[in-house]
Amino acid sequence: MSSPLRLGIAGLGTVGSGVVKIVQRHHDMLARRSGRPIEITAVSARTRGRNRGVALDGYAWENDPVDLARREDVDVFVELIGGSDGPAKAAVEAAIAAGKDVVTANKALLALHGQELAVAAEKAGHVVRFEAAVAGGIPVVKALTEGLAGNEILRVMGVMNGTCNYILTRMQAAGLSYETVFEEANQLGYLEADPTLDVGGIDAGHKLALLASIAFGTQVNFAAMDIEGIERISIEDIEQAADMGYRVKLLGVAQLTGRGLESRMSPCLVPMTSPLGQLENATNMVVLEGDAVGQIVMRGAGAGEGPTASAVMADVMDIARGTRLSTFGQPAAELRRSTGAQVSAPAPFYLRTALLDKPGALAKIAATLGDAGISIDRMRQYGHEDTSAPVLIVTHKTTRAALDEAIAAMHGTGVLAAEPVAIRIEEV
Amino acid sequence: MSSPLRLGIAGLGTVGSGVVKIVQRHHDMLARRSGRPIEITAVSARTRGRNRGVALDGYAWENDPVDLARREDVDVFVELIGGSDGPAKAAVEAAIAAGKDVVTANKALLALHGQELAVAAEKAGHVVRFEAAVAGGIPVVKALTEGLAGNEILRVMGVMNGTCNYILTRMQAAGLSYETVFEEANQLGYLEADPTLDVGGIDAGHKLALLASIAFGTQVNFAAMDIEGIERISIEDIEQAADMGYRVKLLGVAQLTGRGLESRMSPCLVPMTSPLGQLENATNMVVLEGDAVGQIVMRGAGAGEGPTASAVMADVMDIARGTRLSTFGQPAAELRRSTGAQVSAPAPFYLRTALLDKPGALAKIAATLGDAGISIDRMRQYGHEDTSAPVLIVTHKTTRAALDEAIAAMHGTGVLAAEPVAIRIEEV
Repeated sequence: MSSPLRLGIAGLGTVGSGVVKIVQRHHDMLARRSGRPIEITAVSARTRGRNRGVALDGYAWENDPVDLARREDVDVFVELIGGSDGPAKAAVEAAIAAGKDVVTANKALLALHGQELAVAAEKAGHVVRFEAAVAGGIPVVKALTEGLAGNEILRVMGVMNGTCNYILTRMQAAGLSYETVFEEANQLGYLEADPTLDVGGIDAGHKLALLASIAFGTQVNFAAMDIEGIERISIEDIEQAADMGYRVKLLGVAQLTGRGLESRMSPCLVPMTSPLGQLENATNMVVLEGDAVGQIVMRGAGAGEGPTASAVMADVMDIARGTRLSTFGQPAAELRRSTGAQVSAPAPFYLRTALLDKPGALAKIAATLGDAGISIDRMRQYGHEDTSAPVLIVTHKTTRAALDEAIAAMHGTGVLAAEPVAIRIEEV
Repeated sequence: MSSPLRLGIAGLGTVGSGVVKIVQRHHDMLARRSGRPIEITAVSARTRGRNRGVALDGYAWENDPVDLARREDVDVFVELIGGSDGPAKAAVEAAIAAGKDVVTANKALLALHGQELAVAAEKAGHVVRFEAAVAGGIPVVKALTEGLAGNEILRVMGVMNGTCNYILTRMQAAGLSYETVFEEANQLGYLEADPTLDVGGIDAGHKLALLASIAFGTQVNFAAMDIEGIERISIEDIEQAADMGYRVKLLGVAQLTGRGLESRMSPCLVPMTSPLGQLENATNMVVLEGDAVGQIVMRGAGAGEGPTASAVMADVMDIARGTRLSTFGQPAAELRRSTGAQVSAPAPFYLRTALLDKPGALAKIAATLGDAGISIDRMRQYGHEDTSAPVLIVTHKTTRAALDEAIAAMHGTGVLAAEPVAIRIEEV
């Protein structure tokens, strides 16, 4: 048996405690599988005293994660602090500079600084691994980087924010408004301190940006992603979608098109009979499409102590076994710069608005679509409120740009009684 | 860039040709990802002249795969011949003896001889990898061995024979008999030369035996598996199951219990709303349950040129990247001998039979169950044929052994008009 692999763990929140528990509980099993003992030598967190349900005696304590990252007796720096900058970034940089391998669950850090960090680590012959940063316990980084390494990747899709999926499926199941369920989720502690990270699609966007980099061999380009949150999805949208056989999901899609790398995270309508459509509650799902393998679907818990710690340990075990992969599946210095696609692939769209009760209102709206070159698949004025009437339109395939043009023109007609909500209908 | 990784490919059927195509089409992409060119130096197949839709010029030809396995200019021997013995086994043994790494898609070979082959390879410092042998394109061997390496695995389940799932879902969708759909599948070329391998559950059993070995750190023990095929599933079973909210699947389940390693491949009833219940056609699905990660579900094509070649290439790419794992996730010499569980975990069972039209017949059958300590959840005599009446029973949780005892006793009552069909209802 080889020498122990020594971990320094920075951040002892839910995930950090989970990692400590696995290392303690499964010491022998991990050694049997990796050929060497996995040991924790030092830890770091903001507050020392707190009871975390795990025994930390025997581990050195560092107040500053940067000091932890530089310790002689640490081989792998495990960063579970979070946040795209601040102490997490400083500590990971220090770890790389000190010649450590890094395992992190920090999607924000990597989505914004992954390229520089990976280049620095690889230059020094070290690895930065991040299975836990994407879709929690689902080993999707590994599946994409290694399992599908023989494939040209055609498309990556995913429902990767459990909170959003919880909100959307709960609205659907209970017929509740967005606001009510948002408040429920808040009470349950499902939301990040800044809920925009969740419901604004940013957290899920970080994850998709990382997968896209592996899939297409491009530098992480979070800034080029189209991101739209679920804040404007109403129970009416969900019910109308269900009537047509669809579910609303906060869906990420990345694909390489003739126009560049298209990547977007936005509410989409997907068929309710598809695996994505059937995904309920806080569960995550990632769909990988390769030219040889076809479609691979992976489903599992996207967050929580056990699942995320499981993913951290996958990276730790790889390092213990001597597996040394580039962060994004090929040397970071060789990744192409990705130009975001200016125009996303055409798709049918669902469009909901309301019109003032004026003669010819519907015709005016229809005309704006026609002028933008968009043909209408279905159009329906349903029910009637005091002075306005809700209208639902399903278009044939069009671009988001053309639709936005039509929506701008709709505002000029003077007949809109509500801001139009447009939701892409995604072929999955 | 390092020196090329040189493949010798034995077997140029569907999968072999698929591997050649990937290596040719994606030469640059593979080199970029692995850091070294992947090249084919020599190939072997039964007949040389056949048109396989791929150019083989430039590759040396060997008539005998054993000679291919021993070539100086081969680093990795890729075995795609098939069959548990004969040329496949001889060639893999020769490759290991000659100091080559081996990649194989051969589940039968590994299910029966994997332990010796892995011990021999690992003794010599070489690897035997088999992602393509289990569930086609789904990277499940990798997910289990590496992605969930930090987990104690609690249970592995899978629908891993596409032909059986095709037959069962086609029967369900079209209301056709087993015999009719079996014939259809035969016409479509879905069946192995010996169809018992498919419909008898043996092929899927081989796959489950391999996953169980990784999951539980035990020597592959195909002989200890309980295997039952789908040959006796009637359209009536499928329709009755549907009435109760279930689908019939050929489901493999492996779990470590207090009584030893329980592993079985058999028709089971699973809830139609579960991912397994929703699995249609020839698609495969594997469910992995770990103590930290919870449940991970993976779905994809279980066979075919592209998917299987994709899995072969995953192993090749691992070797190219310097990843060197034990065949079963820990050194084969250290795997425990598994004792098959004598008694499988209790479950509710579905039991269908028919009774002669005699007074007290139903009571007699009910009594046999009571005598075996089995309580009845539901019992129904439905419809009526000339001289007999079909009967459907759903038991409360019981063991298969107790049920078999009751069925034996039923034969002694003299009221059975049909051989009872028992199907386990699996909690998934």
